Amino acid sequence: MFRYAEEKDVSLILSFIRELAEYEKLQNEVVATEELLLEWIFEKKRAEVIFAMEDGKEVGFALFFHNFSTFLGRAGIYLEDLYVKPEYRGKGYGKALLKKLAQTAVERGCGRLEWSCLDWNKPSIDFYLSLGAQPMEDWTVYRIAKDTLSKLAE
Amino acid sequence: MFRYAEEKDVSLILSFIRELAEYEKLQNEVVATEELLLEWIFEKKRAEVIFAMEDGKEVGFALFFHNFSTFLGRAGIYLEDLYVKPEYRGKGYGKALLKKLAQTAVERGCGRLEWSCLDWNKPSIDFYLSLGAQPMEDWTVYRIAKDTLSKLAE
Repeated sequence: MFRYAEEKDVSLILSFIRELAEYEKLQNEVVATEELLLEWIFEKKRAEVIFAMEDGKEVGFALFFHNFSTFLGRAGIYLEDLYVKPEYRGKGYGKALLKKLAQTAVERGCGRLEWSCLDWNKPSIDFYLSLGAQPMEDWTVYRIAKDTLSKLAE
Repeated sequence: MFRYAEEKDVSLILSFIRELAEYEKLQNEVVATEELLLEWIFEKKRAEVIFAMEDGKEVGFALFFHNFSTFLGRAGIYLEDLYVKPEYRGKGYGKALLKKLAQTAVERGCGRLEWSCLDWNKPSIDFYLSLGAQPMEDWTVYRIAKDTLSKLAE
């Protein structure tokens, strides 16, 4: 039903990342390469990837890492990407992946499972709310990247 | 000017976490203890803490961890808590801590520096925007915790 990704899977991971970005209409933002994924996921171990499997074929994936809550004083799990291939949707794979991550969070003693969703993505939002997820509506994420990051670092 | 926190600093870290939560009007959410911080920050190494120093005294802190961007294919730095004691505000410590984290991000090859801010906290938002930070206004964070997490994990 599930398997953890290994180094040999970087090409598949990258294709899933690109398919999800396309669905999010953000494909222009993908600059990841197989070499970068190999370095940052498998050598530096900054993320983990689980595939949902059907008949020995990868039909979806979850890429996650550990965040940290100062209020809880412990780590959580942050789900960066959740994706199921269009032809396999509506069969419960998305929920199964979220359930697997919730189990992983409990097993590892983590206090939370969190992720972000685009505000126009109503089908996903409805699905998340049906699971009891709480939208953190009072908070906004701020980002510094590219030239602004280099400039601040000077 | 800065120093990285060590195990002996858990009590100070916890007091800074509580002071920040009080400022955020969220002090009831703090269930962290010194034991938990020792375990999750210093044993499991799920976060790092830098203090801003003045005359040998800790006047503020930044607690951060590595997140991961699938679009960039590499880690970023996520600033969970940034706090300067009220009597030391307006002296540039907040900006100095952010600058230090931007430098750390660049040194470690990370692509982004990110954090969250409460939408009513206008003084902080104005400060972040003045640094060139981009609010991720199209996204909302969703969270599953406590009983909902246990239930999903069943």
